Amino acid sequence: MQQQESAHQMMGYDRTSTMFSPDGRLLQVEYAKKTVKQGSSALGLVCKDGVVILADKRIIDKFIVAKSVEKIFQVDEHIGATASGILSDGRILIEKAQVISQQHKVTYDESMDIRSLVKEICNVKQAYTQYGGARPFGVSIIFAGVDDRPRLFVTDPTGIFFEYKAVAIGEGETELRSILDKEYKETLKLEDGIKLAMKALKKALGKEFDIDRIDGAYVRTSDKKFVRLEKENLKKLI
Amino acid sequence: MQQQESAHQMMGYDRTSTMFSPDGRLLQVEYAKKTVKQGSSALGLVCKDGVVILADKRIIDKFIVAKSVEKIFQVDEHIGATASGILSDGRILIEKAQVISQQHKVTYDESMDIRSLVKEICNVKQAYTQYGGARPFGVSIIFAGVDDRPRLFVTDPTGIFFEYKAVAIGEGETELRSILDKEYKETLKLEDGIKLAMKALKKALGKEFDIDRIDGAYVRTSDKKFVRLEKENLKKLI
Amino acid sequence: MQQQESAHQMMGYDRTSTMFSPDGRLLQVEYAKKTVKQGSSALGLVCKDGVVILADKRIIDKFIVAKSVEKIFQVDEHIGATASGILSDGRILIEKAQVISQQHKVTYDESMDIRSLVKEICNVKQAYTQYGGARPFGVSIIFAGVDDRPRLFVTDPTGIFFEYKAVAIGEGETELRSILDKEYKETLKLEDGIKLAMKALKKALGKEFDIDRIDGAYVRTSDKKFVRLEKENLKKLI
Amino acid sequence: MQQQESAHQMMGYDRTSTMFSPDGRLLQVEYAKKTVKQGSSALGLVCKDGVVILADKRIIDKFIVAKSVEKIFQVDEHIGATASGILSDGRILIEKAQVISQQHKVTYDESMDIRSLVKEICNVKQAYTQYGGARPFGVSIIFAGVDDRPRLFVTDPTGIFFEYKAVAIGEGETELRSILDKEYKETLKLEDGIKLAMKALKKALGKEFDIDRIDGAYVRTSDKKFVRLEKENLKKLI
Amino acid sequence: MQQQESAHQMMGYDRTSTMFSPDGRLLQVEYAKKTVKQGSSALGLVCKDGVVILADKRIIDKFIVAKSVEKIFQVDEHIGATASGILSDGRILIEKAQVISQQHKVTYDESMDIRSLVKEICNVKQAYTQYGGARPFGVSIIFAGVDDRPRLFVTDPTGIFFEYKAVAIGEGETELRSILDKEYKETLKLEDGIKLAMKALKKALGKEFDIDRIDGAYVRTSDKKFVRLEKENLKKLI
Amino acid sequence: MQQQESAHQMMGYDRTSTMFSPDGRLLQVEYAKKTVKQGSSALGLVCKDGVVILADKRIIDKFIVAKSVEKIFQVDEHIGATASGILSDGRILIEKAQVISQQHKVTYDESMDIRSLVKEICNVKQAYTQYGGARPFGVSIIFAGVDDRPRLFVTDPTGIFFEYKAVAIGEGETELRSILDKEYKETLKLEDGIKLAMKALKKALGKEFDIDRIDGAYVRTSDKKFVRLEKENLKKLI
Amino acid sequence: MQQQESAHQMMGYDRTSTMFSPDGRLLQVEYAKKTVKQGSSALGLVCKDGVVILADKRIIDKFIVAKSVEKIFQVDEHIGATASGILSDGRILIEKAQVISQQHKVTYDESMDIRSLVKEICNVKQAYTQYGGARPFGVSIIFAGVDDRPRLFVTDPTGIFFEYKAVAIGEGETELRSILDKEYKETLKLEDGIKLAMKALKKALGKEFDIDRIDGAYVRTSDKKFVRLEKENLKKLI
Repeated sequence: MQQQESAHQMMGYDRTSTMFSPDGRLLQVEYAKKTVKQGSSALGLVCKDGVVILADKRIIDKFIVAKSVEKIFQVDEHIGATASGILSDGRILIEKAQVISQQHKVTYDESMDIRSLVKEICNVKQAYTQYGGARPFGVSIIFAGVDDRPRLFVTDPTGIFFEYKAVAIGEGETELRSILDKEYKETLKLEDGIKLAMKALKKALGKEFDIDRIDGAYVRTSDKKFVRLEKENLKKLI
Repeated sequence: MQQQESAHQMMGYDRTSTMFSPDGRLLQVEYAKKTVKQGSSALGLVCKDGVVILADKRIIDKFIVAKSVEKIFQVDEHIGATASGILSDGRILIEKAQVISQQHKVTYDESMDIRSLVKEICNVKQAYTQYGGARPFGVSIIFAGVDDRPRLFVTDPTGIFFEYKAVAIGEGETELRSILDKEYKETLKLEDGIKLAMKALKKALGKEFDIDRIDGAYVRTSDKKFVRLEKENLKKLI
Repeated sequence: MQQQESAHQMMGYDRTSTMFSPDGRLLQVEYAKKTVKQGSSALGLVCKDGVVILADKRIIDKFIVAKSVEKIFQVDEHIGATASGILSDGRILIEKAQVISQQHKVTYDESMDIRSLVKEICNVKQAYTQYGGARPFGVSIIFAGVDDRPRLFVTDPTGIFFEYKAVAIGEGETELRSILDKEYKETLKLEDGIKLAMKALKKALGKEFDIDRIDGAYVRTSDKKFVRLEKENLKKLI
Repeated sequence: MQQQESAHQMMGYDRTSTMFSPDGRLLQVEYAKKTVKQGSSALGLVCKDGVVILADKRIIDKFIVAKSVEKIFQVDEHIGATASGILSDGRILIEKAQVISQQHKVTYDESMDIRSLVKEICNVKQAYTQYGGARPFGVSIIFAGVDDRPRLFVTDPTGIFFEYKAVAIGEGETELRSILDKEYKETLKLEDGIKLAMKALKKALGKEFDIDRIDGAYVRTSDKKFVRLEKENLKKLI
Repeated sequence: MQQQESAHQMMGYDRTSTMFSPDGRLLQVEYAKKTVKQGSSALGLVCKDGVVILADKRIIDKFIVAKSVEKIFQVDEHIGATASGILSDGRILIEKAQVISQQHKVTYDESMDIRSLVKEICNVKQAYTQYGGARPFGVSIIFAGVDDRPRLFVTDPTGIFFEYKAVAIGEGETELRSILDKEYKETLKLEDGIKLAMKALKKALGKEFDIDRIDGAYVRTSDKKFVRLEKENLKKLI
Repeated sequence: MQQQESAHQMMGYDRTSTMFSPDGRLLQVEYAKKTVKQGSSALGLVCKDGVVILADKRIIDKFIVAKSVEKIFQVDEHIGATASGILSDGRILIEKAQVISQQHKVTYDESMDIRSLVKEICNVKQAYTQYGGARPFGVSIIFAGVDDRPRLFVTDPTGIFFEYKAVAIGEGETELRSILDKEYKETLKLEDGIKLAMKALKKALGKEFDIDRIDGAYVRTSDKKFVRLEKENLKKLI
Repeated sequence: MQQQESAHQMMGYDRTSTMFSPDGRLLQVEYAKKTVKQGSSALGLVCKDGVVILADKRIIDKFIVAKSVEKIFQVDEHIGATASGILSDGRILIEKAQVISQQHKVTYDESMDIRSLVKEICNVKQAYTQYGGARPFGVSIIFAGVDDRPRLFVTDPTGIFFEYKAVAIGEGETELRSILDKEYKETLKLEDGIKLAMKALKKALGKEFDIDRIDGAYVRTSDKKFVRLEKENLKKLI
């Protein structure tokens, strides 16, 4: 496998996203996924009464204004998002999502359902894996929100998306996942979900953990409002 | 053959879909077909009184919301589709099919015949095998529906399509096919066709089989309506 | 010759249709012709009272709906066509021919003469051998019809065409030709021409011959109407 | 010289028409000229009372409808043309010439002088030797006609043209030329010019000569009308 | 690491910004960052009552008109900026910022908040890391100003930005930073902040320090006006 | 030097006009100049009472209609031109000059001054040395005419031009020049200038000299009219 | 350093201006600067009462009409310019400057300040260092003029510019500079400045010096008018 990989690199099958390798793979897209694996950690949980996302801001410079670093973005009144990979790629796509969602509301006079929004963003991502003259987006995005029920989606660089009950992305994916595997239940209440997410991130970050590095938000099923987790509240959870 | 293949790769005949190899082949398109062979399994059967398609969702993460994973798509009131290969490529083409079919209905005030729809999608696919600056679509799509009779088409990455009585695509193609070879008859009633398809998928998936992984739909000749197979109904079939 | 061919490949003269080799050849176009040589067989005959075309559908899967496989296409009321090579390339060009012929009728209120139609399709083919960013069409097309007399044209991937009295293309070209050489006469009546074509295809296909694989049509000089050969009629000819 | 040629090929100076070789040559254009040298033979003669062109149709298949093979094209009432090299390239340019000449007549209400027409076609040819993304035209064209006097022009793939008293192109160029060198005189009458051209072609084609392979036309100074040479008349000349 | 870097260079993963390396990096963007590291030094400090930026003009020719060398640019009434890297790249982006900020004021009749402006400039930068046919911008820009509070942003060639309390860029980054680490406090008054910045630059430039090489400006929270630091005032600070 | 040249060729610095070599040269443009050096010879002389240009038509085929070969072109009533290098390139540019000069006259109701015309043609030439997707023009053009005084300009493939008192271009440049060096004086009268030019060409062409190969024209200061040198007059000069 | 340079060339980092080298350099732009270093010499001096520019015309052919060779261009009533490097590149940019300056006057009814003009030209230059499909401009331009005070700017191929009190460019840069270093003072009166510039050029050109090779102009602060230095006046200065 490793040898074939190396041979494919030698032959140049991995130089553009407009090329299949002889075994039918899109290597540039696979490399873009590696970028995501090196991104900062984030996770999301669907709870009984809402959905929560938490992300590591990965601030490593004390002079950075921590509260100004946004890793959780409000996409619309009822939707939040967080990205892992190339930050600026993520920003571009999330701003696109904000515009699409607002246009939907203006056009149809009702909130956009989250799956449709995710699909449109993924169609953009797909295009960058098929046409030349550009690279794929090096970012995975978690979209979380509530429409007729709490929803949690992850989009990868290929433009493929899945809906999850619980999910983790970025460099801490494996560690976060093992905690979710053990402790996540669909019956968790939002407060407990937030606690679990916090606990998982704390464990994954280890010594690097710092409450100022954590960004979070939730959407409760009852009011479908995106609410940021304030530092004070987060502190109480540790 | 293998040696020639390797020589052609060395010479770079397989780097773009705008190039013929010295033996008159389009290698990028052949690689795209390999992607399909690695895709999740799907099959379709024309029955006496309708047509059915079943597909493996290939969900390998317990946290994925199984019911949200769509492998069977409704294209129009009377047409369904399922794709094997790059999921996001399939989504793009199926959304295009939905738009074409709706525009037809609006323009001509009658349902589009399925062959014409398939031809238009295949014309799109053909273009991506002839022009530079993009890669071929890495996906095969089964279109199934009823117009003047039950129809079942498969389109490949080249933009070639055939109408079938029964067909299987994806990683389980060979296994599914061997079962169809033995047990499929044109005189099957839809209920028996669904059972046969289910049996085949169960055998092909082996230990990995799980009722939550199966997506299905049928169109009955009598009412020409796309109907999804509910999990409850599927369960009864095993 | 073989050595020079190989040297030219090493030097990359065969990588794009926008390049002449040092001996003044267009290698990509020559490769496209090889694709045609591997295509399914087809033949056409001008008879005393009309013109006939027959083609092998090359159906190798018993589940394919034979009657739905079109190898003979009606281009206009008085013209038919069949293609050998990449099926989807052929479809694109034949659909273009249909549109051109219909536009001619609408614009000039009379049927298009066949040579003019062939010339327009060949101009499209020529362009794909001169401009970059695309590959030549990998298909030869037989156009057959009646205007002031029965006509039979073959277009090759270069955009060159000739009018024939009798012609064969595809993998069976040599075998079909040797039969035509021996038995074809311009004085044949249509019925006898169809029989001869059938006999030739039967011989060329050998064991693979099956009445379901044969597609055919004729245009009679008297009424200038494209008529498909029904399976029942074909059967009688064997 | 041969060695330098080979070195230039190794270095890739001959891969596109947008590149000069270090010795200031356009190699792609030179290769296009080789295509012409392999084309079918044609020749033209200016006579005392008109101009004649004759061309070998090079029909090598007995089933080709000889009379339908056009090697001599009428460009306008007073101009004919014949091409040697890639037939489809020639057709494109001659159709362009037909349009230009007709537009001139419509715009200025008088026949276009032949030199101006030739210049416009050559400007098209020049462009394909200077811009990328396409190959040069692989064809030389003889334009023959009468405006204020009988004219005979040859255009090469570079877009360079010369007016001749007598000229030959294509594979038989050398042989045809040696006959012209010996026997052509400006004082020849048209009938004798046609005979001479016929004699030359016969000699150049040798055993391959066949009256059905010859296409010809002349324009007489007195009436400035393009007239095709009928087979019957040609026969008498042998 | 060094070896892998070298291998990636050999393989050409670093030739265009539209390509990921096999380990998921954008090498052209990383090279652009090296350009910044070689740029002239600049630093910025948020103080209790405003924000200050200072930059080294790096004038090394006594004949250059020092006062005409602008390293600090006024973007709007309340915003300044300084760039490190390719000067002309920086100029282009800062002029774009000026236009965007003015358009905002004209459109909404209020000053643009600084974060939004920075985001728009970073979106431009991001595009140059994803699309082909151009290189990334080889420049980092410090934006400093006051909207509802003193703000200090740095944008890198990737299009990523962070808000800082204190920051240094360019060749003197490490040295400047070590001074900030020791002496910067958020409670500094603007006057003391300017002194500290001056002291740091003096130390970083060492023998090369010259008051004429220093460009500076501040925005006070009370009046939100961009004010250039005059040479006379700067002198007093040493 | 030769070695560096060869190294630069190996490295590919000479493959496109959009690339500088490491020593700051534009090699494609230098190759285009070599084309000029191989072109047919031409020369121009400013005399006391006008300006003359003479050119070798380099006709090497006795069947070419010598008088139809134009090497001297009338650009406008008061301007002539001759080109050396790729004939078709020269024709394109001279036709452009004719159009520009006529448009000037129509727009401003006065003859265009020659320097302005030359500058516009040179701007076209410059563009083809800076932008990709095309090659530089492989031609030098002598423009000669009279506006407020006799003018003689030469433009090279770079788009650089100089005004000369006397100049020679093409394969005979060195030989022609050495004669001009010895015998040309600014005080020559036009008749003597023509004689000198003729003498120089005769010597440069040597055995190949033939009065039919010479094309010439002059513009006299007194009437500013372009006048072609008739064969009869040229004969008298030998 | 030399070795790294060579390695970078081997690796192709210097083939297009859209590529950074691994050490963050733009090699094509650096090569363009070498072109400037080989250009003809020019220098400019700001004096107490105006600004002067002098340039070597580098005429090496006695037949060139010296007075027609312009190395000093009038950009507007109050601005002059001279270029070193590729002459035709310089001409293009200076003509652009002329147009921009005139448009400014027409639009705002006042003379353009020189810095703004220089900035606009440099923005054009910057674009050619960032986008593909073209090469950078191989020219440095000195702009000299008077707006509120005498101004002297130099723009390099990167699109970077500086204002100078005194400056020299081209092949004689080092020699000219050493003279300016010794003798230039800001308090020089224009007459003395012109003398100094003349003396410097004479020394730099050495034996090649010839009054006919010198082009010059000045703008006096009092009237802000561009005035050419006549040969007679220049002579008196030697």
